[in-house]
Amino acid sequence: MPRLLDKKRIDKIVMEAIVSYKEETSILPHVQCPMPDRDVIINLAGQLRQMIFPGYFNRHACRGEIMKYHTGELVVNVHEILTEQLVFALSLQEFSKSKGENICKRDVIQKKASEISYVFLEKLPKIREFLATDVEAAFQGDPAATGKEEIIFSYPGIFAVSIHRLAHELYLLEAPLVPRILSEYAHNLTGIDIHPGATIGRYFFIDHGTGVVIGETTHIGDNVKIYQGVTLGALSTRGGQSLRGVKRHPTLQDNVTVYSGSSILGGETVIGADAVIGSNAFITKSVPPGTKVSIKNPELVFKDGTAKELKVDYGIDGK
Amino acid sequence: MPRLLDKKRIDKIVMEAIVSYKEETSILPHVQCPMPDRDVIINLAGQLRQMIFPGYFNRHACRGEIMKYHTGELVVNVHEILTEQLVFALSLQEFSKSKGENICKRDVIQKKASEISYVFLEKLPKIREFLATDVEAAFQGDPAATGKEEIIFSYPGIFAVSIHRLAHELYLLEAPLVPRILSEYAHNLTGIDIHPGATIGRYFFIDHGTGVVIGETTHIGDNVKIYQGVTLGALSTRGGQSLRGVKRHPTLQDNVTVYSGSSILGGETVIGADAVIGSNAFITKSVPPGTKVSIKNPELVFKDGTAKELKVDYGIDGK
Amino acid sequence: MPRLLDKKRIDKIVMEAIVSYKEETSILPHVQCPMPDRDVIINLAGQLRQMIFPGYFNRHACRGEIMKYHTGELVVNVHEILTEQLVFALSLQEFSKSKGENICKRDVIQKKASEISYVFLEKLPKIREFLATDVEAAFQGDPAATGKEEIIFSYPGIFAVSIHRLAHELYLLEAPLVPRILSEYAHNLTGIDIHPGATIGRYFFIDHGTGVVIGETTHIGDNVKIYQGVTLGALSTRGGQSLRGVKRHPTLQDNVTVYSGSSILGGETVIGADAVIGSNAFITKSVPPGTKVSIKNPELVFKDGTAKELKVDYGIDGK
Repeated sequence: MPRLLDKKRIDKIVMEAIVSYKEETSILPHVQCPMPDRDVIINLAGQLRQMIFPGYFNRHACRGEIMKYHTGELVVNVHEILTEQLVFALSLQEFSKSKGENICKRDVIQKKASEISYVFLEKLPKIREFLATDVEAAFQGDPAATGKEEIIFSYPGIFAVSIHRLAHELYLLEAPLVPRILSEYAHNLTGIDIHPGATIGRYFFIDHGTGVVIGETTHIGDNVKIYQGVTLGALSTRGGQSLRGVKRHPTLQDNVTVYSGSSILGGETVIGADAVIGSNAFITKSVPPGTKVSIKNPELVFKDGTAKELKVDYGIDGK
Repeated sequence: MPRLLDKKRIDKIVMEAIVSYKEETSILPHVQCPMPDRDVIINLAGQLRQMIFPGYFNRHACRGEIMKYHTGELVVNVHEILTEQLVFALSLQEFSKSKGENICKRDVIQKKASEISYVFLEKLPKIREFLATDVEAAFQGDPAATGKEEIIFSYPGIFAVSIHRLAHELYLLEAPLVPRILSEYAHNLTGIDIHPGATIGRYFFIDHGTGVVIGETTHIGDNVKIYQGVTLGALSTRGGQSLRGVKRHPTLQDNVTVYSGSSILGGETVIGADAVIGSNAFITKSVPPGTKVSIKNPELVFKDGTAKELKVDYGIDGK
Repeated sequence: MPRLLDKKRIDKIVMEAIVSYKEETSILPHVQCPMPDRDVIINLAGQLRQMIFPGYFNRHACRGEIMKYHTGELVVNVHEILTEQLVFALSLQEFSKSKGENICKRDVIQKKASEISYVFLEKLPKIREFLATDVEAAFQGDPAATGKEEIIFSYPGIFAVSIHRLAHELYLLEAPLVPRILSEYAHNLTGIDIHPGATIGRYFFIDHGTGVVIGETTHIGDNVKIYQGVTLGALSTRGGQSLRGVKRHPTLQDNVTVYSGSSILGGETVIGADAVIGSNAFITKSVPPGTKVSIKNPELVFKDGTAKELKVDYGIDGK
């Protein structure tokens, strides 16, 4: 194809871009520190998933002696790459806090990053233990599941919770940026939005999952099951940044089930153990343990082709 | 960056990972058989899409003589790769069924896998025929559509239904694992969750689509249109694995439209031909043919800035 | 693995595929013109994002003199690739309009494509200006945000709006196909479905976002905030292609907030400035400025383990 390159016009576009970078600085990074790399962090998630479910997402991984070498390689790799990304993220945080006055204290930050990586890697067996219960819950809870392999290979709920359990450990270790990049990666793929801060017990199962939102200060007990479109959210965020750190999201005790499309809002809202919340409920206050909550579904109106209203005997009870 | 590699600590992490693999075996694959490869299966989906829509997702594909060679290459490739993945999936299934007692009967499985691949490939013209009607339905049904090219290139509903029609044929041929990996791949990309078991007629159109759930035993007739956030689901899955194989999801007859956010639940629920279900309805019983169902929308409350309630004349009818 | 290649059966499958291509032509592209390449266009989106947020998605991009060279390279690249893709898209459009009678007027189309690319690139500073306000709105509006870096790196709302602001400029320049491929790419990743035609003011924030739908003829003022599952849609699309170009989607004036799960429908529906729409409302008529609209939430029914109804004091007000 013949190029129609108008040098003057290109030059003008470049100049105006540069001017824009100089004037609109609020969305520029702090240039003195290198930035974390989103693609590298996502690749890391893949390696961590290999460590959690060996044999599923790489070949040769779970066979006798080879397993040891393969695992060793993964551990060294993950430690190195995670440490590097945390150095970038911690430097940026330092730089922001000090409003650019501090230079990056390289070896303090390097040590801190390495330590976070080690402690994180030491949590992997515990994370596997929790995830084994999540897979079990998915298998028990879904009649369409033909086996655990299908669940591990393809269930979006298991993918999102796997990434969450990793991101949550990093969040607890106060690693900046990296946990949220991980959790939004899972959100991209699954439509399930779990903030890394959320605390989630064993045997957790999210079925279908698209549209699920679980806020930063949510607490979820053991053996909880939720469906697509459920929000565990804040009552209002009009306070904006002044609300940081405040418990804004609900608590779900053990054995709670929440059906599709329901919203449970507010930091003081507690759904008691064994409660069942039916579809499309809007809950902003606590519910006692053992209670089954349903909504009186909006009345249905039936009309025929001529828009004449029909009498249809149709009692529904909101599950 | 200087490495701070603490050999002892790395060794301990590796050892504990190995211990975890030995103790938490419930999420380990059956190591005697190689596993299907999710990335290979997703790549296969791309090749199949090239066969269905030649010229759209690869160049040179639909021009005279070259088309024949290109198609030949694709068919051989797909047969080989699909057969290989099915061998892995069928071996795993055999192994699970026999609780690890049977060794993999290599050539029986190989033959079965090859046969499934052939029969599947023989279905492609039928799948194209159905998809041509789906594209037509999208074009007729969406005022924003500027042409069929736009629909084939970019509509998530067409993508999800393309993958579904492929996965469904494999499901009917009792191919394990592969159909679900395909359908969850489409779910990842589109937010549309169609179980490979669902039966769907011609001229099917899903508009926008995020949050749609269509369960395993759903039956959908010809010329059906559904919108974002619609669930065609089960009434309750508390029976878990005991419900496998039971019809748990609804039937939609020909020419049904279901507007956004509605749930239609239960294996005995039949939505009769030409029925229209308005937004946000919650349906758990059958609806007669030709009926227009809407909900009495929850009453709206209007307040001004001082929280004083306002009288607003505002009759809405739930579409 | 030993191949079981049955040449006759493969040949038959290839032949039948070719027959299918000849008979089912409605989903074949117009073969005389090459087609746009979806992957190339998505790659382009990545380069444009580098130009908008230099330093975030590529290293070395925002440092002194190097920035100029890097930006220059990006501009030349984007112009060349975008022009090429627009040539394909415009040729296809020409060919469709003329029902295949016209041959592609190569240099007229080439000039038009190049001009669109230039004018588009000249808009980048303005797009950056708008996006800086969106990032600011996200930071002010979300108590979970720890800094602008986190928002730019990981917030799906910012990703979707970035792609939208690019796609919208191309839409205004009447570029065919490319804008919609861009916006459906963002829809894939974020679950946020914004048609390239939608007009959106400054300081726009979408929180969480999965399930959001914003239709082609929507108008949104400054400082608007919407949550997951909100639809700004059409009242009915039963008119299909006859409705093309008609304003079918609502107008939201400045400072409007719409909480999760609400639908606002219809081309004549105007949500007045400073109005707040609570969760799960279904709005099909205009709302006066400054009004707070909530729904009388469906009444909740509480039962204990023996299915006995419980009295629970539980006044909720729909936020």
